[in-house]
Amino acid sequence: MDESRRNQLLTEHLANYITEHKKAFVNQVLDMRTRHITMVLEEIFQSQNASAVIRTCECMGLQDIHIIENEVKYAINRRVLKGSYKWVDLIKYRTRENTSTALCFAELKRKGYTILVTDPSPDGKSIYDIPINNKLAIVMGNELHGTSAYALAHADEKVHIPMYGFTESLNISVSAALCLQAVIPKMRQSEVPWQLSDEEKDIIRLQWYRKMVRRCEIIEREFLKALPA
Amino acid sequence: MDESRRNQLLTEHLANYITEHKKAFVNQVLDMRTRHITMVLEEIFQSQNASAVIRTCECMGLQDIHIIENEVKYAINRRVLKGSYKWVDLIKYRTRENTSTALCFAELKRKGYTILVTDPSPDGKSIYDIPINNKLAIVMGNELHGTSAYALAHADEKVHIPMYGFTESLNISVSAALCLQAVIPKMRQSEVPWQLSDEEKDIIRLQWYRKMVRRCEIIEREFLKALPA
Repeated sequence: MDESRRNQLLTEHLANYITEHKKAFVNQVLDMRTRHITMVLEEIFQSQNASAVIRTCECMGLQDIHIIENEVKYAINRRVLKGSYKWVDLIKYRTRENTSTALCFAELKRKGYTILVTDPSPDGKSIYDIPINNKLAIVMGNELHGTSAYALAHADEKVHIPMYGFTESLNISVSAALCLQAVIPKMRQSEVPWQLSDEEKDIIRLQWYRKMVRRCEIIEREFLKALPA
Repeated sequence: MDESRRNQLLTEHLANYITEHKKAFVNQVLDMRTRHITMVLEEIFQSQNASAVIRTCECMGLQDIHIIENEVKYAINRRVLKGSYKWVDLIKYRTRENTSTALCFAELKRKGYTILVTDPSPDGKSIYDIPINNKLAIVMGNELHGTSAYALAHADEKVHIPMYGFTESLNISVSAALCLQAVIPKMRQSEVPWQLSDEEKDIIRLQWYRKMVRRCEIIEREFLKALPA
């Protein structure tokens, strides 16, 4: 039996342990899920900031969040995350030679993303003027130093949020939320194929069911043991 | 000499101590400033949350922020505020009988505001569907208990931010930012008179100049002494 067939049967089996209401909710969330837009966190050193961004991304329907660790190791803050990390894919980049940003950008390019770095300097574009026909990866930089020189040099666009006050700097989770809100509703109203494919949904549904079913490892082991090879 | 004339002369005098560039920036910020929309913080107990909201409001051009303290006393967090509190009017309500919310709402009503309470329950309106022709006061509630029963009962509308994930709850500074971003750009593009009056601008300009000029108290005292009565 091939893996995809086995996963399908396993998903059906785990479904027996989940209420109809929850299964319907999973489908509803999956229908709104997207990889057309993704978030990239470069060297965020305060765990509460990274965690608040992840929670915002999950609430807004993003599936993937890329985490670049050069000097700074990502640490989670469960109080702030409110369980959101369970429902998204966190993709981490950590190399020995501090080339994690290059590695991440190469991967994003391979997947067809236009890379936007957030930068307060006015020579970039307003996030409101970014078209959403291409896949977008939005890079949020370090709280103190901003995005790295590498990121600024290798991104497709610099973007900023228009501001009208003295302070001219927003908390990183607020910036991330405002950037997402500037592009996500436009994307959802557009004709671009922003939704996940059925294959992607199947993979994620199984991931989620595994997290929703108590003592899933035991149930899964028993079920797979009983399957024909 | 009446107070308004004296303030005008004092403003002109303090202007001598401020660079042209900064004075132009003050005028630019004043032109974007609004009281058409205001933010109300009810019993926010984490100072970093209240402070992040104040910073966001300042960046987005709000002049007034109303702070309701019943059980919880507002404490500022300078690291998060980034100086933003210097440029906004913080209006605090604190009564002995825990009726601060009633006091605040009465004041907002007197000033003609439509009061919106943020509440995750789906029976309210989406913040995107709120018209901006009326003055709007957006109430953010306590991190744990949400907005108070009094606030829910006495507001004009319950509003929520549409969400698409499992987590269904955003950090309070993120919520505040998204609510503001849902109404402020619409307001700025509309015909409603959202800008401050010239009189309001003059009062705020003097407040700001006082904060920008070093040893302002001494300069001010000397100047007023030399004025004719």
